[in-house]
Amino acid sequence: MWIDPRWDVVEERFDPKRAGHFESVFTLANGFLGTRGATEEGYLTRTPGTYLAGFFEKAPREVIELPNLPDWVRVELTLDGERFDLTQGKILDYRRVLRMREGTLVREVTWESPAGRIAKLKFTRFVSMADRRLAGLKVEIRPENYQGKALIRSFLDGQVTNSGTQHFAPVELNTFGERGMYMISEGNSSKRLLVQAATHTVAGRIQREAFQSASRQIWYWAEVELAQGEWVSLSKLVTTASSRESHGDVLALALHEAESHASFDACLNTHREKWDKLWNQADIVIHGPEFDQLALRFSMFHLMQVAPQNDHTVSIAAKALSGEGYRGHVFWDTEIFMLPFFIYSFPQTAQGLLRYRHHTLPGAMAKAKENGYEGAMFAWESADTGEEVTPTIGGIDFKTKKPIPILTGQLQQHISADIAYAVKNYVQATGDREFLRQYGAEVVLLGARFWASRVELNRDTGMYEINGVIGPDEYKENVDNNHYTNRLAQEHLLYAAELFEEYGEEESIKGWNFTPAEAKEWKQIAHRIVLPAEGELILECDGFTRLAEIDALKYRDTPGALQMEYSWDEIKRSQVIKQADVIMLMYLLGSAYSREQKALNWDFYEPRTMHDSSLSAAIHSAFASELGLKDEAYHYFSKAARIDLGDIMANSAHGLHAASLGGLWQAVFHGFAGIRTLGGKLSIEPALPKEWEGLELKLFYQGAQLRVSLTHDGGTVELLTPEKEAVLELPTGTVVLKSSSPMASIWA
Amino acid sequence: MWIDPRWDVVEERFDPKRAGHFESVFTLANGFLGTRGATEEGYLTRTPGTYLAGFFEKAPREVIELPNLPDWVRVELTLDGERFDLTQGKILDYRRVLRMREGTLVREVTWESPAGRIAKLKFTRFVSMADRRLAGLKVEIRPENYQGKALIRSFLDGQVTNSGTQHFAPVELNTFGERGMYMISEGNSSKRLLVQAATHTVAGRIQREAFQSASRQIWYWAEVELAQGEWVSLSKLVTTASSRESHGDVLALALHEAESHASFDACLNTHREKWDKLWNQADIVIHGPEFDQLALRFSMFHLMQVAPQNDHTVSIAAKALSGEGYRGHVFWDTEIFMLPFFIYSFPQTAQGLLRYRHHTLPGAMAKAKENGYEGAMFAWESADTGEEVTPTIGGIDFKTKKPIPILTGQLQQHISADIAYAVKNYVQATGDREFLRQYGAEVVLLGARFWASRVELNRDTGMYEINGVIGPDEYKENVDNNHYTNRLAQEHLLYAAELFEEYGEEESIKGWNFTPAEAKEWKQIAHRIVLPAEGELILECDGFTRLAEIDALKYRDTPGALQMEYSWDEIKRSQVIKQADVIMLMYLLGSAYSREQKALNWDFYEPRTMHDSSLSAAIHSAFASELGLKDEAYHYFSKAARIDLGDIMANSAHGLHAASLGGLWQAVFHGFAGIRTLGGKLSIEPALPKEWEGLELKLFYQGAQLRVSLTHDGGTVELLTPEKEAVLELPTGTVVLKSSSPMASIWA
Repeated sequence: MWIDPRWDVVEERFDPKRAGHFESVFTLANGFLGTRGATEEGYLTRTPGTYLAGFFEKAPREVIELPNLPDWVRVELTLDGERFDLTQGKILDYRRVLRMREGTLVREVTWESPAGRIAKLKFTRFVSMADRRLAGLKVEIRPENYQGKALIRSFLDGQVTNSGTQHFAPVELNTFGERGMYMISEGNSSKRLLVQAATHTVAGRIQREAFQSASRQIWYWAEVELAQGEWVSLSKLVTTASSRESHGDVLALALHEAESHASFDACLNTHREKWDKLWNQADIVIHGPEFDQLALRFSMFHLMQVAPQNDHTVSIAAKALSGEGYRGHVFWDTEIFMLPFFIYSFPQTAQGLLRYRHHTLPGAMAKAKENGYEGAMFAWESADTGEEVTPTIGGIDFKTKKPIPILTGQLQQHISADIAYAVKNYVQATGDREFLRQYGAEVVLLGARFWASRVELNRDTGMYEINGVIGPDEYKENVDNNHYTNRLAQEHLLYAAELFEEYGEEESIKGWNFTPAEAKEWKQIAHRIVLPAEGELILECDGFTRLAEIDALKYRDTPGALQMEYSWDEIKRSQVIKQADVIMLMYLLGSAYSREQKALNWDFYEPRTMHDSSLSAAIHSAFASELGLKDEAYHYFSKAARIDLGDIMANSAHGLHAASLGGLWQAVFHGFAGIRTLGGKLSIEPALPKEWEGLELKLFYQGAQLRVSLTHDGGTVELLTPEKEAVLELPTGTVVLKSSSPMASIWA
Repeated sequence: MWIDPRWDVVEERFDPKRAGHFESVFTLANGFLGTRGATEEGYLTRTPGTYLAGFFEKAPREVIELPNLPDWVRVELTLDGERFDLTQGKILDYRRVLRMREGTLVREVTWESPAGRIAKLKFTRFVSMADRRLAGLKVEIRPENYQGKALIRSFLDGQVTNSGTQHFAPVELNTFGERGMYMISEGNSSKRLLVQAATHTVAGRIQREAFQSASRQIWYWAEVELAQGEWVSLSKLVTTASSRESHGDVLALALHEAESHASFDACLNTHREKWDKLWNQADIVIHGPEFDQLALRFSMFHLMQVAPQNDHTVSIAAKALSGEGYRGHVFWDTEIFMLPFFIYSFPQTAQGLLRYRHHTLPGAMAKAKENGYEGAMFAWESADTGEEVTPTIGGIDFKTKKPIPILTGQLQQHISADIAYAVKNYVQATGDREFLRQYGAEVVLLGARFWASRVELNRDTGMYEINGVIGPDEYKENVDNNHYTNRLAQEHLLYAAELFEEYGEEESIKGWNFTPAEAKEWKQIAHRIVLPAEGELILECDGFTRLAEIDALKYRDTPGALQMEYSWDEIKRSQVIKQADVIMLMYLLGSAYSREQKALNWDFYEPRTMHDSSLSAAIHSAFASELGLKDEAYHYFSKAARIDLGDIMANSAHGLHAASLGGLWQAVFHGFAGIRTLGGKLSIEPALPKEWEGLELKLFYQGAQLRVSLTHDGGTVELLTPEKEAVLELPTGTVVLKSSSPMASIWA
């Protein structure tokens, strides 16, 4: 198999112990359906996972989650009486490759059975980008030193669970057409129907074939003649439909679609063509180390894979559709870490993601009310309705024998301001004021109303405080005046006041009874909100510098070392930081701080940061780029690039770190390429790492598509859409690109 | 390991493909708790199963079943960095043994790891017969050619399901005492609480130890030093309690019991002592082939294991507590096949089993009402309430694409008469008239009321018919006047009329408004019920001899061969028989038929019987003994002996065939030893097979304990309870055993 190290993620050897990791890394998805890269054949460590975006279920005494759908990937092979099982016999050749260029997962194996039968096998899988309901796989077998027969069994297997939790009731198993079978399941809590329909094509001489079923399982089996040196194959196309996204007769719909599919190869080609278009629109070409290119593409690949398709009722989970970590819940990860990629590459997708927050306003308003506030207080963890779904207990502390409380759902309140920030960020970059008018302003204004009810007036100082929160740094629980939170709340309130002036009379706003007096109050609060600092040093929260000091540098390269030496209580009472917090703030509001102040705060906070969250490294990279700290920027880029590809967090088996994937893109796009839209204007101020020779990318800015090419010697930006103009801030000054002058040098 | 081939069931080699079979065969139980013989360490084909008698749950769109409890057996070992996994490396020595003498499952392995590390391992397990809540296991490790450390992880694993169906919600995982951990689960439908509490003892030097938890899992782990040639061990005692059988604070109860247990070895000894007593009471010693002895003990062992302990609200499932086949439901298997063993060996247990039917009278009365009848119509499949729980659909017929209806729940009505027969059988053998007074008469009379409402008067003939039923032979669906059914209904009605005379004024009967007129009607019906026959040939049902003929002999030794050649419809319309039906009847009512008539019917029906049910062979053996057909009797005994030990039915993985286990005992006790209580008197008319030299057994008869010793040359029966008398019918005539003449020769 020919490998392109800039496009192909390769598993070089079969290792059942690392099955979970590669299942996450090799997830295929299309924004609607996601399937982990579990092998076709079963192993003890195999953890198949298939999820439908937005299809949530709630089991008794458990947190709502994305249920694991019946496993459509499972195919068991018996080659001349011996089960195909890579833990037995000998593996003569092995390679599994995620072909990101075309969105396929391919496995090629030469296997010698315990009895000495040698066969080549090839497995190809895709989840169609061209047809959201469609996924497929093909199994090809060629015996090398024998002839005989292969027993192929292809399953829809509903015996899978979410770590033991079964969310579905079995409704029907049946067959259709010539070699078609389907399974209908019903969500236990939602009562939604799920239909999976599989059709089969066998290339080879079938001796016998039939269907069988058991509890929650149906399978097609065929005995196929094997002739030495000749390929036989089974192709399987699977159609998925549910009453969440489809009305009417979901079974009829699924069977109709299943019966109208073209051949496996034709479906695969359509899928490849779609990927071609996506890459053409979003790819960033790095002239530099192969791994850097691969890692960046890995990020973009998985972000494109989970972008919801024309469905504003869903967003992207912290683990995308790649695993059950965080149970499919949506965090600030989407707006702050992933959204920028979509803003500049797929603005329509970005809009849809923000509309999810509009869609979940009722949940956010319910949360505010339950907590004694007004307006919209967004959930720290959000599922289908926007109600708070953060678990309140995180297991048992076996020392105290008490449950460990999880406070983030109540205290990590900055998410409401993060969403407002994201709205502004999106609108500035896209110019999509229609979105603001219909949805965005409503989200921002209702959020501002929450902050106005949330702040506490300190009668001694006359200042507004926000006490008892958790900021981005989750190693500080229940702090007062987290600077990040207060500063973004301030931005939020001011943005809301501005939007009220512009959109106060719109349909979407009028019914909420906002008044000029309320907007004026927002501004007053914003201007008198406490922003703790010591001179130029921004304080992460009140009293931060009075906390005990721990040498983070001593521990941060050894996961868990800090926790071995210090108790959770000690960590909370020290200056050691989990992840970018003040740095995160200065990065987000880049134009609000001087370079000197940024440098001073970097010097203070960077050595105190453990990067114990996957959300930290990429942001440190991008911020270091801003400061011209090229080595640090590249160091953190490299670290971020290995979070899933290298399993730095040692938990990728539970799913990819989608925020980190988005962060890596930001480290390149905002960091190395220096492209930002701060203060409403697109600026480009590159800071290429010395390890790279250059960079090429395309982006959308206010409806115009631009191409940027960078080297250490120079760079150009070119307008690709002659019908549009683009105003840019370059190091050389303001430039207007238009059809008559579509190109500019970035620096002299 | 020393093996006694008359006591020890041995698995000679590790074969993951046969895991399910041996899990059933190696089930340990104590009537309260049953645990399949799954290995401690995980394999892909491992199917752990732990069930609590009578603890049923109902999941949406599924039939009520015994839920699979969190797995307490799982222990994972890592020996110096290598996972203990018998599919890897080399097995130098292997033996797994069910030691029936003492009720333990022992596995001894010498394993060479892939890296060449050799260790001896020994696993010992028991489910305590002395304390129903207690089960335990011990893992012992001795490295042979290395030193290092063992990582031992001991689980309570709630991620297991019933083939994908999860019946429990997770309530709490926590630790207690020094090395104790517990899990609380809640039944999803019943809302009952289940507590499992495990304590651990390590013999060896512990380097590190802790508890960990995940979704539905808690585990204790210890790193233990390994020194070459020295044993280390982990002992685990597990206490199980539920709010089904216990009131109040179930957790406190379980923890209290868990903390008061003696050491593993002491608990194991108490368990062994209890088994000693059980065998002393029930064992049958065969002087003959080792396998025959082993198989008979295997039957008795499993029957003793699942005998409910002082709980008349539960009965014995068709698969005992050994698997999920038939979902833990109770059939006629209990009364007709298993009960005789208990009647003669543990009469108190037999009484409890019959009281289960009394306990479920409300369900039986509801079933009658729903079907338009009166009285008590017992469920073909019964769970906790006695309501009918037979599934109505048995999967899809993939040819017609239609569900296959299961009619047994509606049509297999003979069970009500079977229960009345069992009551009579029990009372005749035990003389327990107090049971009749309190419970038995009520069951029989309400059942008779059902039959009286069920029979149909044929106005042309003036005879009563029972049309549209399924008899014991399930290959005839929806027949008229199944002779077995009609004849046992007749017996039932007559017995009821007799009991009404005796117990009509008892508290248990009075409230039901039975009248002499009703009892008279029962007798009238009984005397005019249709009993289809052609001369001496009993007809299985109306028109049986007009059905097409198929040569059953041609197919019956090749499972599935008949079904390959004939459609289900053709089978239904032919004289081919699934299992003993007329033979069953003549066996049950042995004294009602002449030897000549029995022989005539044997000659007709035996060659037409496929024995496609596990309920057939043993009955044919016992009946052949009656006829003096010694070769046939031994042939069928041998066949029945291999139903689970040889997996003749090829489905033992789903659980043992408990009826066949009871049948095998009958083939020996009623058949070869010829001991029956037909017509109210104990008769002994041995028919030892020529392969055996002799037989020794003990039995209870009307409160007296007797010992029977048989050889081909003679035999004796001895009274072991001098305070009692026993009247026997021997070939030599009537004999009274009493303290002054406690022994008699069986024949001259």
